[in-house]
Amino acid sequence: MTTDPQVDSGRIVYFVSDSTAITIEKLGQSLLSQFPETEFHTVVHRYVNSITEAHEIRKSIKRAVLDHKQVIVFSSILDAEVRAEIKKSNAIVLDIFESFLGQLEALLEQTANTQTGLVHGLGDELSYQQRIEAVNFSLRCDDGLSESDYSRADIILLGVSRCGKTPTCLYLALQYGIYAANYPLTQEDQYLSALPAILQPYHDKLLGLTIQPERLQQIRAQRRPDGQYASLEFCKQEVHRAEILYKSAGLPVLDSSQMSIEELATHILSFLQQKQK
Amino acid sequence: MTTDPQVDSGRIVYFVSDSTAITIEKLGQSLLSQFPETEFHTVVHRYVNSITEAHEIRKSIKRAVLDHKQVIVFSSILDAEVRAEIKKSNAIVLDIFESFLGQLEALLEQTANTQTGLVHGLGDELSYQQRIEAVNFSLRCDDGLSESDYSRADIILLGVSRCGKTPTCLYLALQYGIYAANYPLTQEDQYLSALPAILQPYHDKLLGLTIQPERLQQIRAQRRPDGQYASLEFCKQEVHRAEILYKSAGLPVLDSSQMSIEELATHILSFLQQKQK
Repeated sequence: MTTDPQVDSGRIVYFVSDSTAITIEKLGQSLLSQFPETEFHTVVHRYVNSITEAHEIRKSIKRAVLDHKQVIVFSSILDAEVRAEIKKSNAIVLDIFESFLGQLEALLEQTANTQTGLVHGLGDELSYQQRIEAVNFSLRCDDGLSESDYSRADIILLGVSRCGKTPTCLYLALQYGIYAANYPLTQEDQYLSALPAILQPYHDKLLGLTIQPERLQQIRAQRRPDGQYASLEFCKQEVHRAEILYKSAGLPVLDSSQMSIEELATHILSFLQQKQK
Repeated sequence: MTTDPQVDSGRIVYFVSDSTAITIEKLGQSLLSQFPETEFHTVVHRYVNSITEAHEIRKSIKRAVLDHKQVIVFSSILDAEVRAEIKKSNAIVLDIFESFLGQLEALLEQTANTQTGLVHGLGDELSYQQRIEAVNFSLRCDDGLSESDYSRADIILLGVSRCGKTPTCLYLALQYGIYAANYPLTQEDQYLSALPAILQPYHDKLLGLTIQPERLQQIRAQRRPDGQYASLEFCKQEVHRAEILYKSAGLPVLDSSQMSIEELATHILSFLQQKQK
């Protein structure tokens, strides 16, 4: 039996998908974030591919509604029968396929294929392989041992310790198959008036990450609260010297202080696309 | 000026977002994949926040339409004026906020906030920090040096070399803040009749990854085509022994052969959620 969510107040939001639920959850969260005063409790049902499973979920929704809970359902189900089962619940069901597929069918003068496997799955084999290779590349470079790989990189991020280089590189690799390397600015580098020699041949791939010292201190303190490393004074100095280096080398700079990993990564993607034009 | 896409045949699809465009691109791609016979050329415009930018994109769309191209626009723009500018183009515009926000407003009896910053951005600070920490954890464990960290892990993936452990762990960390460790099965381990001693205290966190030997060979051959490592015979043996080990230890098993990183990760997520019930 499908376990019911235990909730006292607020709304219950079901995300129901015949696949990973990644897209529908992101879409739903971004819509719900427009109603910051309401508390939402979310329940995710992934890989719902049979009427039996859908029926269990429908019963769970029905129980919640009978229990005077206000329920919203975001659904991403291709199979019309499975979708219909979810829609039989007496909650508001917002279905992305139903909303858009009809419009696209009319426009393209074609019937949608509605095969779940097409939506996700391995899909483009090359692209899957490329993402894996890009992740491995990023991991190799993160060791700082294989700097000869810099010639293979699409982008090289510079920055002081804990300013966001590694997760950003990994996100670029995992999501977009981009070969993203990073170069951690050591204290030695920070006293240089020019770029470290090893980076100079790759000037057009370089991007400097900066961060507000207060934010850096906060991040570092969570890891190693004591000592110079997480002191505000030290963070200020490091960031200041890194920024001087970026400026003297004429590098583009991104400030990671207020950005999520996704935002950093997509700004870098835009930067790469701009360069190609 | 916005550069126009150079396309000879097929449809042109614009993804226009006031933020990262990640959600709208995923949504659009999953809808378009239902029309496998049509070729789609995609153009992504991120961080479109001003009427001036929207106006440039509208002009680019208009030129494409005048050039007898068939254009579909997926838009994810909160600001009504910026969105209206895009909608003035004479192409089909599918806007996710317009489609769903009205329904949600009626349901919640509230006006949507429509502040771009709320949708993405740092958002929940703890969750951001948790994701970064989870990535660092995963990277530490990937070295295979800090196996004492296994006690901190939410999940420990076992598997032979190149079966998908590392990218899956990183995806779980980056997207969901899950502490995912991996244990690479060495040849020595594969001859064991029981789990390696170091893993035995964490039996309930273990999940075995398996893969079709043919697929493994294909992946390995791309990296090191020569030698035993990528030979089909060797891959068969390794996978076979790993599966015997999983079975004798009573571990849950996932087959990565036909799954994308996202699918592996979300199946593991479901597995973790099932355990909590």
